[in-house]
Parts: sequence; C-alpha cells; structure tokens
Amino acid sequence: MQKPSIPKGTRDFSPEEMAKRNYIFDTIREVYHLYGYQQIETPAMENLSTLMGKYGEEGDKLLFKILNSGDCFAGISPDELTEMSPTKFAAKACEKGLRYDLTVPFARYVTQHRGDLFFPFKRYQIQPVWRADRPQKGRYREFYQCDADVVGSDSLLNEVELVQIMDEVFRRFGIRVCIKMNNRKILTGIAEIIGAADKIVDITVAIDKLDKIGLDNVNAELRERGLSDEAIERLRPVILLGGTNREKISALKEILSASEVGLKGIEELEFILDKVEPLALRANLELDLTLARGLNYYTGAIFEVKALDVQIGSITGGGRYDNLTGVFGLQGVSGVGISFGADRIYDVLNQLDLYPQEASRTTQLLFVNFGSAETDYLLPIIAQIRAAGIRTELFPESGKLKKQMSYANVKRVPYVALVGATEMEAGLINLKEMSTGEQTQVSVDELIARLR
Amino acid sequence: MQKPSIPKGTRDFSPEEMAKRNYIFDTIREVYHLYGYQQIETPAMENLSTLMGKYGEEGDKLLFKILNSGDCFAGISPDELTEMSPTKFAAKACEKGLRYDLTVPFARYVTQHRGDLFFPFKRYQIQPVWRADRPQKGRYREFYQCDADVVGSDSLLNEVELVQIMDEVFRRFGIRVCIKMNNRKILTGIAEIIGAADKIVDITVAIDKLDKIGLDNVNAELRERGLSDEAIERLRPVILLGGTNREKISALKEILSASEVGLKGIEELEFILDKVEPLALRANLELDLTLARGLNYYTGAIFEVKALDVQIGSITGGGRYDNLTGVFGLQGVSGVGISFGADRIYDVLNQLDLYPQEASRTTQLLFVNFGSAETDYLLPIIAQIRAAGIRTELFPESGKLKKQMSYANVKRVPYVALVGATEMEAGLINLKEMSTGEQTQVSVDELIARLR
Repeated sequence: MQKPSIPKGTRDFSPEEMAKRNYIFDTIREVYHLYGYQQIETPAMENLSTLMGKYGEEGDKLLFKILNSGDCFAGISPDELTEMSPTKFAAKACEKGLRYDLTVPFARYVTQHRGDLFFPFKRYQIQPVWRADRPQKGRYREFYQCDADVVGSDSLLNEVELVQIMDEVFRRFGIRVCIKMNNRKILTGIAEIIGAADKIVDITVAIDKLDKIGLDNVNAELRERGLSDEAIERLRPVILLGGTNREKISALKEILSASEVGLKGIEELEFILDKVEPLALRANLELDLTLARGLNYYTGAIFEVKALDVQIGSITGGGRYDNLTGVFGLQGVSGVGISFGADRIYDVLNQLDLYPQEASRTTQLLFVNFGSAETDYLLPIIAQIRAAGIRTELFPESGKLKKQMSYANVKRVPYVALVGATEMEAGLINLKEMSTGEQTQVSVDELIARLR
Repeated sequence: MQKPSIPKGTRDFSPEEMAKRNYIFDTIREVYHLYGYQQIETPAMENLSTLMGKYGEEGDKLLFKILNSGDCFAGISPDELTEMSPTKFAAKACEKGLRYDLTVPFARYVTQHRGDLFFPFKRYQIQPVWRADRPQKGRYREFYQCDADVVGSDSLLNEVELVQIMDEVFRRFGIRVCIKMNNRKILTGIAEIIGAADKIVDITVAIDKLDKIGLDNVNAELRERGLSDEAIERLRPVILLGGTNREKISALKEILSASEVGLKGIEELEFILDKVEPLALRANLELDLTLARGLNYYTGAIFEVKALDVQIGSITGGGRYDNLTGVFGLQGVSGVGISFGADRIYDVLNQLDLYPQEASRTTQLLFVNFGSAETDYLLPIIAQIRAAGIRTELFPESGKLKKQMSYANVKRVPYVALVGATEMEAGLINLKEMSTGEQTQVSVDELIARLR
C-alpha cells in the first residue's frame, strides 16, 4: 500500500512546530488585545461571487473552487458541456471558493453586518487562506494571515497606533526591524509633477534599483519604459533623494510644491512621524519612496517591515485603503490595516534562534509506571498534582524502564518521578531532574511547591 | 447592489461570539496540556484518496470536493464527459477535498510520520471540519472539532485518563454532566449469546425505548426486526438490567458467562470503574448498554457525555478503536480518543448563562480624545499604561463626547479616562468607572495600580 501524503503546497504541523506557531500567534494576539482590537472569524468558504474579480484576473485563477455537491451538471445541457471552457464550467458548477485573503471576507463582513457594528470597528483575524499558486520554497497553498484593521475612521492616529503595534510585536519577538513607510498620495504627486500618472509602478521599480545599477542605468530603464526626457529630468531629485526622514520630507516639499495631493501625502507622513517620535520606538522608521505594495489598493499610508538581521522579504505589510466596502455597495467606509506574515516570522525566529524555552508547553512531570499496585497508589496523588496546575503524565504501560525514560527524553519532560515499593512505604516520591540527573526524595507537597 | 452573504450552513463569528468560543477552546486546550497531550494541525485539504471510502457511501457524498485548478477537463474526452455521472466526473476532476473529521487525517498523519513519532503518541487537534450536510438548527457545514487521542498503547489507563479529562473540562465549565460508558465487546457478547450477531443496532435501539414504550412493545419491535422468540427471551434480562453500575456488572457476568468476548468487555469496564472511583469525580459515571456510537468503528470502550440541566444531544463522545491506521497500511496501532462538541457546549453554556465575566478580553480603559494638544500629551502616557499590560485605547477622533462614550458602552469598556486642559496642568487623569459613574482624579501610577 502506498504511504499516504498531503496535497502539494500544504503542511502538517508537528507538536514542536505547533508550539512555535502558537507562540507567534499568541504574541500577536496579545498585542492586538492591548490596543483594543477584537477577534472575528469568517467561514473558510465564501460565495464565489464574493471572491471573483477582487484579486485581478490572475487572482481569479488562483482561487480554489468547490464543486457543487449533488449534481454538478445541473442546468448544463450535454451540448453546452462539451463546448464549455474549464473556466466557464467552473463558474457554473462551483458556487463556493476558499478564501484567498482576510481582507475581502472582512469587507464582506462589515457590509453584511453593518447594522450591528459600531464604528470605528477595530478587528483582528488570524485564519488560514488558500491560493492555487505554484508551490515553492517558502510559498504555500495554505498559510495563515494575521490581520488587524480599523474601519470607519479617517484619523491618522490609527496609522500611528499600527506603527506602535508593529514595533511592539517585533520587540516582543526580539527581532530587530526597520518599518518602512510611504504614502500613495506622494507617489501620485510625483506622477503628477512629471506628467506620467500611468507610470508610477515603473518609476518605483526603477528608483528601487538605484543602489545596484546607478543613476545612468536607472534613467536608461525609465526611457525604455516610455518616460520622456523631460519627465526623467524632473524625476532626478526624487531618485537621488537621501538623508534622514526629515531631510527627505523637506526636499519633497520643494519637489511637490505644485501638487496638492503630493503635499497632502507629505502632511500625512509628517503627522505620523511627529506622533511616533516622542514614543521612542525600538524599530527604525524609514521613509521609502520605493514602497508601493499593491498600488491599486492603497490610497494613503503604506507600511512594510523588514528584518535587519535576516535576508528575507517583508515580514509585515499594510496601509490605508479608502472605500474598502465600496465593491459590496457600502460607500464611504475607509480602513487602515496591517498583516503579519506568520510563516516568514517563523523562519526568522528559527534562523535567529529566538524562541523562548517556554514556547513548548510540554509535560512537566512524568510518573514511571511500575505496575498495578503503584498505579492504584499514584492515581489520586497525580490528580492532586494536576489540580495544582502541574502538567503531569503517568506512563500508561508498566513496560521497560528504558522505554519510559526515552519517552520522557523525546518529549523533553524536565522531571521524572519514580515511586516503587520503598517510596510507597515512606510516602515519598523519588524525583529525578532530567537535565542534571540529580535525584531527591520529596513529599507530594514539596514536589508541588518545587514544580509550580 | 445585493447585500453580500455567506454560504448556507456557514457562520461568521462576532467579537462577542469569538470571546466565548475562545473560552471553550482555551479551557479544553488547557486540560489537554495538563494531561500531556500535544497539539498538531493538518491541512484543510486532503487528497480525496485519503478521504474517500472512510465514512461510508453516505459520507463520500458529504465530502466537499475541490475542482482541480487549471484545466478540470484534462484527460476527459467530450464523449466521456457527456456520458459521465456527476460522481464519476468529480472523481476525475477533483483531486482534493476538505477534511470531514479529524480522525482520518490523524490516522493519515500517524502513518505518514510514523518514523518521527514516539509511541504512545498523545495528540490533540482543534480545527474546523466541513460536511455537505443539509443545514438545520444546530447543524452546520463548517464546525470545529476538539479531539484528543492516544495511539500506540493498549493500556486501559488511557481510558481512565480520558474519563478524568471529560470530568475536569466540564467541572471547569460548571456544566453538570453524566459520563455514559459502554464497551463494544459487551455488545458483541450479547449478540453472541442470543445468536443474532447482525442485530446489534436493532437491539440497542429497542433497549433504548424501554422507558418510553414498555417491555411488551420493545419485544414486539424486536420481533418485527427479525429476532426469534428464543433470542428475545434470552435478551429479556439484558433489557431489564437496572440498578447501580456494580449491580449491572454482576448481572451481566451471569448473562454473558458463556461469551468470552463479553466477559472481556466486562473486565475492561470494571478496570475503568475501579481506577476512577477513588478519584472522586464530579460527574456521574453510568454504564449504559444502549450506547453504540458508530459501532463499526469502536472496538472497546465507548463514551458519551450528556448535560444534566439542558435538553440536548451528547456534548462529547469517544472510544477505543483498534487498528486506526490499518486502512493506510500501518497495522497494529490501537487508539482511544474523545471529541468535545464545541458548538453544543457553546449552546449549553449560553442557556445556563455560565460564561465567566473575563471571557471577553475587551479593552479595559478608553481615553477620550479632546483634540490635538491632549493627544500629544497623552500618547506617551498611554504607551506607559500599555507597557504595564493594561488594554488601553485612545479614541481616534476628537468628535462628540457622546459618540466616544457610546463607543465605550458598546464595547463594554469598564473605565474611561478624561484628560482636558485642567487635568494636563495638574498632571492627573479623571478616571470614570462606567458601572457606577464615579469619577476620581488619579496619577498615572495610581491608575496603573488600580487597573492592573
């Protein structure tokens, strides 16, 4: 018989991996709570009408679609069937799909339940999402997202708060990070002043290469991408922008002086910097004009977090999007949010060996099983120890001591208790500390006091 | 535009519902840890070859199948296509399905990772499952299961431990319960002695009706179901079995004296009772011969938990199954496990109003926003309060006080802090306790001491 397997791009998580993952989720969750975000959950399956058309044409193809149960051919004649494209067939034979991210289901949630919500609504959501992407190293078909969003408030204090949250989460993890910021309005302003509103993506991609290929090559690339010499000339001070955040901002104020929207973007950025600076964050905060994440999506602030000590893509991202729920018919609800990339954070914590010891909440104490009489004697004692909150096991079989000790070793149980005839008579427990091998005779109360 | 909705049989969970659900999951999780069970997770999608044929013909129909991405018609000629049944098509066009329970994925996990596991392996798993059942009150197409199983140990101490776990979980919830027990071997023994091995289900169904319809009607029903008069006569003492667990056991020993397997079942039951009785459980433990849950599945102990104060089906169930992984080619691995029904427990806790106050970990303190100067003053103070672990919000907009107070009310925030020009000058915080309306002037340190 063939050994069973799981679909490509999906993963099983072992107890050890789960302990680490829970440490990540619990840390993020705790910080979200500290800032007043409340958890919601949405179903794994959404109606395809909710999902389709929200992630672009490419995204539609990456949706996992669920075949209608019962007769999936219902309403399709044999003639139609043989002439149908797979895409068209899927549209007929599948009503439901697996969620692709947490943002669209959240927009659907806000629209559907608007009558029950009080705005501003601060929600977080930690759930898996599914994408039929080609699996590769670090890219999975099932992975968790950890999103927090505020909807129904235009205040930039929300952006400030999200910066604080990103800083606090990575401070708790012990990961040194740089929080990069940009503002979509500044990018729009730049496009305005160089007269190339449709070239924003080309421009950010080119700017991003300055360090690697130099100004001449960047300009050549911009020309290739269809920018006029005049536009390239106007872009020069933007590309060469350097210095501190404040220096960049004061230069941008000059450059964008003719663009109302550009100046508005600078004002927003300055507000966030003004509020955040007195808070003495641990993370570096850096204005980065090359930051454009899903440009069609964000309308104000754009955030991205990079780990300083590990070579890896961004480990958190987010920004402000006006009209989140407009696509579902609810107008005028602005939102701003962030999403922690749990899988990449997992890799970073592993590489830097930053998991705390307690991350695996394993058994603290294992009682060796010497047989029936000892078991009868021990069961009530073990119940008493558990009642004191100590995670305790009795090995279920009175087999070889070696196997029982191996069990303790494999599970990394720090204490093993040995109670045979002598100990029963004395009313004591022979307690072995596994790290040192040291054995001591203790009473039940002493054992509880020591392990609690 | 039509208001968006979710697929029938699925649910959104609001912050309030999530808080209650997390209380349930956290309680179960904590008790599982206390007994040394370790968490694993498996993917939502399994290969259909893993799932098909494991839940009977009816179960196969209830699997949600995922249409292959790319060309779902690949390898099917137009002629074949028009002649195909929907079932046959699904088998060709779908490689993956959503998991239907946690037991089969666990058996697949154990088989696949056997080289990395040390037995006995005690795992728990809390994840959603999906079934294309007809939705109705209390029955959903997506719901959570909370399973714990031990595999690789035949010891009945595992059964004892699971009884303790069920007792402890419901003690923590404050739900009074009866834990019903039976043993598949006893049922087999009964079938043996009356010479009707294939009538076990009919017999248990009939016995179950004794209280309602009386012995004569039960016998009539048994006759209808094809039992001989002789078999019915032999069954009489089983049907009329009453008294305490011990009385039932001693009567059963007589009745089943000629059945080796029946006596073995009684021995197993007695072992569990012997070990559990000195532990002074809170729950009633009751031998119930009508208990047959998924008879083809269990091979030894069978458990079921009923709430005493609410009319509802069983809220937890489980038992021992030999050869869990045999279907995947790994022989000789026995298992025993239980599964808490989170959705029913949710309903019971609601009906009995047993949720603790702290179940909703909401914001503890809201700062009213009076404007820009106050915000600049407060942001570092709020950071200090959060650093002390107090869940704190600053309302993001300096709008009407009434709206801000409503926000606190809706979110059930117990304390609101008001800091205007006077308080800023005095270096104090005007702290309002929402339940009493009482206001006091406190320093930051006093506030932290009071709320922590």
